[in-house]
Amino acid sequence: MSRSPVESLLQAELSARRDSVAAVDPQLLPQVDELIRFTMMGGKRLRPQFLWLGWRAAGGEDDGDRAAAVRRAAASLELIQASALIHDDIIDNSQTRRGRPSVHIAVGTSAAILLGDLALAWADDMFTEALVDLRAGSAALHAWRDMRTQVLAGQLLDLHTSAHSHDDPVEQARAARRVNRFKTAAYTVEGPLHIGAALGCADGPVITALRAFGAHVGIAFQLRDDLLGVYGDPAITGKPAGDDLVEGKRTVLLATARQRLRTRPELLAELDSGLGMDGGPERTARLAAIIAATGAVSAMEDEISVLVSSGLAALEQVTLPSDVTARLRELAVLATARVS
Amino acid sequence: MSRSPVESLLQAELSARRDSVAAVDPQLLPQVDELIRFTMMGGKRLRPQFLWLGWRAAGGEDDGDRAAAVRRAAASLELIQASALIHDDIIDNSQTRRGRPSVHIAVGTSAAILLGDLALAWADDMFTEALVDLRAGSAALHAWRDMRTQVLAGQLLDLHTSAHSHDDPVEQARAARRVNRFKTAAYTVEGPLHIGAALGCADGPVITALRAFGAHVGIAFQLRDDLLGVYGDPAITGKPAGDDLVEGKRTVLLATARQRLRTRPELLAELDSGLGMDGGPERTARLAAIIAATGAVSAMEDEISVLVSSGLAALEQVTLPSDVTARLRELAVLATARVS
Repeated sequence: MSRSPVESLLQAELSARRDSVAAVDPQLLPQVDELIRFTMMGGKRLRPQFLWLGWRAAGGEDDGDRAAAVRRAAASLELIQASALIHDDIIDNSQTRRGRPSVHIAVGTSAAILLGDLALAWADDMFTEALVDLRAGSAALHAWRDMRTQVLAGQLLDLHTSAHSHDDPVEQARAARRVNRFKTAAYTVEGPLHIGAALGCADGPVITALRAFGAHVGIAFQLRDDLLGVYGDPAITGKPAGDDLVEGKRTVLLATARQRLRTRPELLAELDSGLGMDGGPERTARLAAIIAATGAVSAMEDEISVLVSSGLAALEQVTLPSDVTARLRELAVLATARVS
Repeated sequence: MSRSPVESLLQAELSARRDSVAAVDPQLLPQVDELIRFTMMGGKRLRPQFLWLGWRAAGGEDDGDRAAAVRRAAASLELIQASALIHDDIIDNSQTRRGRPSVHIAVGTSAAILLGDLALAWADDMFTEALVDLRAGSAALHAWRDMRTQVLAGQLLDLHTSAHSHDDPVEQARAARRVNRFKTAAYTVEGPLHIGAALGCADGPVITALRAFGAHVGIAFQLRDDLLGVYGDPAITGKPAGDDLVEGKRTVLLATARQRLRTRPELLAELDSGLGMDGGPERTARLAAIIAATGAVSAMEDEISVLVSSGLAALEQVTLPSDVTARLRELAVLATARVS
């Protein structure tokens, strides 16, 4: 499933939902249009692609009515993502997203809470409609349910971890990895593949292989994100340089660096004192340099390589259509070697 | 459908969802338990009862597997309601709900945003599972979709109306009525009845009659709520006396009073200057007295009577099982003549 069918399916769904809001009151259109703009401009559309590949891995057909329903189910993941990002930006008080003001900056926090709710409800509408059309059984529904609970529980855990910030670097690293696993990995790769495979009534070994691939590649995806959050090029990522440092985000990268600085208390103190504030570009660059000097960056790069290899090895355990295996390999690289 | 099956179905669903959160991290249990407590202690369970009566009005059976699935669909409405109240209390910065600290006061705003999201996602899970079990067609799904969009759009409109506060009392009354219609009426009575009837594949005239009943009684329900928000007994409502005045809520009651005060500018100014602040019990009582002296309270009482009569008259247009008609009549009174 390429990017452009996702876009047109989302556009069609959102136009219909826009009409239903206009029927309540046309005065609400500027706010709904902000939600539509935000959803339509977004991202790499990785999640719909993984759901589609799960379906194809299960032997699902490439076209016809059933394939069309699966494409709608896949596109609905972008509405979950829009909801998660809008509410996350409120929680983190992030001022920008994708190079533009965050939704809550554009429309205010209260309206942004409700727009995130609309996106979440509309995602369910779109997915359930596809499920009913497919006469799919409860396996796909359970995979969908688990994914949504896990991403929200992962966000709660992220919050909990930040609030009960662990000075102990080992404990901090453990918490950051757990957040990574549920908040991102489970729902970026593993969940979508699992849902798609369940829609296609895949057998147990195929689901196991896809989920193992998804868990490994999904964790690597987030580790790449952590690296880009500190070392990414603002012109490409659309976020300020060193944004994660300014926000004081408790990433695995940061936890690893802190763990390695236990024998260098003066550097650890300098790093800690600069996190979670905007001390200007030079200060941010200095923090990034401290982290890199610990070797944490190369450790993350090594871990990403190992995870991608393990993910690809999991695929070897089953026989999938060759075009599906090829595309999963491509996406594994795309998701973990990206620059934005 | 009585209150207690709703409670046990919710309890069973929430226990299962609690386990799935514990599987992510047991540290999250105190927060999830706050959501469960909030959902379980809540309200009159009117919405599930109306959904159930819609099903029975369509000729749906009273027991067996299909009835059990409809009961689960009905109970899921309480999770929509929990989500709406949690996010609403954040938006309005309401400190208490049902006589206890609001969820965002108990767990913090960020966690409350996510707990509201969980409740919304779980409502969809519970409803969709019932839908799949019933092999229900898309009519029920569309009614469910419209209800959720309307309540969220109604909340957005409420926000929009408060932000662009109309000095013109006539315009204010019009806006307050529109908010009432979508934020409350559509989703308290009309939507649940419609969904239940669609699950039972009711024919057109039955759906039309139930929706007309629901629209009238639902609006009357909110007018009663507006009266209780100013004149309710705190010991019974669980809210401070005159809470709506302290919050400056733009109700139909208030708009009607302001409309009637156009010829008494000094009283209108006194009323306006006291709204949206806590000036102490005497000040709040004075504002309540100004409103009552306009005749707005008896106008609302009259309107409630007319609405309930019209709602009951709509039911006369079709032949429903006699126990269903009797119960709808009872609930119409219960929802609009209540003291809490």
